[in-house]
Amino acid sequence: MTIENISSNKVFGGWLKQYTHISTTVNCSMRFAIYLPPQAASQRVPVLYWLSGLTCTDENVMQKSGIQRIAAELGIAIVAPDTSPRGENVADDPDGAYDFGLGAGFYVNATQAPFNTHYQMYDYVVNELPALIEQHFPVSDKRSISGHSMGGHGAITIGLKNPKQYQSVSAFSPICHPIDCPWGQKALTGYLGNDQQTWPEYDSVELMKVTKSTLPMLVDQGSDDNFLAEQLKPETLIEAAKAVNYPLSLRMQQGYDHSYFFISSFIEDHLRFHGKYLLD
Amino acid sequence: MTIENISSNKVFGGWLKQYTHISTTVNCSMRFAIYLPPQAASQRVPVLYWLSGLTCTDENVMQKSGIQRIAAELGIAIVAPDTSPRGENVADDPDGAYDFGLGAGFYVNATQAPFNTHYQMYDYVVNELPALIEQHFPVSDKRSISGHSMGGHGAITIGLKNPKQYQSVSAFSPICHPIDCPWGQKALTGYLGNDQQTWPEYDSVELMKVTKSTLPMLVDQGSDDNFLAEQLKPETLIEAAKAVNYPLSLRMQQGYDHSYFFISSFIEDHLRFHGKYLLD
Repeated sequence: MTIENISSNKVFGGWLKQYTHISTTVNCSMRFAIYLPPQAASQRVPVLYWLSGLTCTDENVMQKSGIQRIAAELGIAIVAPDTSPRGENVADDPDGAYDFGLGAGFYVNATQAPFNTHYQMYDYVVNELPALIEQHFPVSDKRSISGHSMGGHGAITIGLKNPKQYQSVSAFSPICHPIDCPWGQKALTGYLGNDQQTWPEYDSVELMKVTKSTLPMLVDQGSDDNFLAEQLKPETLIEAAKAVNYPLSLRMQQGYDHSYFFISSFIEDHLRFHGKYLLD
Repeated sequence: MTIENISSNKVFGGWLKQYTHISTTVNCSMRFAIYLPPQAASQRVPVLYWLSGLTCTDENVMQKSGIQRIAAELGIAIVAPDTSPRGENVADDPDGAYDFGLGAGFYVNATQAPFNTHYQMYDYVVNELPALIEQHFPVSDKRSISGHSMGGHGAITIGLKNPKQYQSVSAFSPICHPIDCPWGQKALTGYLGNDQQTWPEYDSVELMKVTKSTLPMLVDQGSDDNFLAEQLKPETLIEAAKAVNYPLSLRMQQGYDHSYFFISSFIEDHLRFHGKYLLD
């Protein structure tokens, strides 16, 4: 597994680098970004994986969240994959919509043609990417996972399904119950087909109902998020967590919206939360 | 002078807002952004003006620098104007180049047609914008000024020419000596004409040589900045400051480049520097 470095920027004493590689999971060239804190120059550091939301790439969190500041203080690497496979041969939404296809992989393994050829983002994030990171960079095998919106959905579902692989999970404004919201229903129909029996394995609420995991989980949600009631539905996750006594801390943040301005305001809390489990 | 609010985002407990207004100085609609820290809800706060670099708008510093975090802690408003007049009727570089015309006003008052109709960015930043801000927002009359690259040039020249209007000045990667670098020579020729006698009033080094000001000044420059030797020339500013015993602190930051990743790494230092003078 080879990787090609395409950019380097010094940030808060560490290095932000972008790489491309040929993914055997999604069958195309993929780009990712990694922030290596100053501590990585002399020791192995744990990794927080960040999954972005609809329309994003690896760049949004690195440019807009300010995440590097606390990552540098604590000594945590940040890895941000892209949000879908890309390229001329990768199928897209037939209408070019922002909420399906390119930039909208939803962190699932697609079963439906033509999407199943490339849209294997679940396996990419859970298996191929961590193996690649641990092969090429001075990181330990301690991992946590976080994300925003579609990426919050990805982080929670992946965390709940793989509790031994991660130390902790967090999310901003996650799509909590995709089987019951327009974004989720469109994506799951397109990637998994009309048979809804296959959908719950990618639904945070449905996974929560049956989880045996006790992975620590922090969720922040803005009260003035335009997508709150129709798409995000945090109340469904709170209810499911209560029913199984899950250690979920979900905070409603008054007046905040769905943007990276919200994320930047609370990313420090998330890094310190993950740090408790990654650095102990 | 009326203003129209076009966006609002809660950030670090305060509010980032964008406005448009009809500028009588540059004779077109202008957009600016203001970050009001939480303290502005109950008291007047001082203002740091931020001047952006080539190709930028009011948005870059607000999205990429993380400036709101320390502004919220200290209680300082941040105001970011656009980098040029804009609109269908505003003359641009004949070749559409990034370094002249739209997005490249250089904070001068143009004297040459067709640019003199709208490109009066010096007067806009020094006079019209502060008056507008102080009319419409809960701010005091304490002001400081900072900026990046072309905006660093703007901040230093404006600070040196108006020491009573500002408490302090700072810059990242400023174009220190525009009369002697390609970016500056192109812009000054276009806006001011071939008669170079008019150029030194917009040149930080030339202004430094004759200044009576002792406005505190902090400059950060990345050692790995691609534009360092040809366009920025910080050594010329250091030399001029030494000759007049000016209180300049210019720091070469090893390994950093020209990007907002560099700015984000040191913006806290700049806010605390300005805070010493804005909040005393």
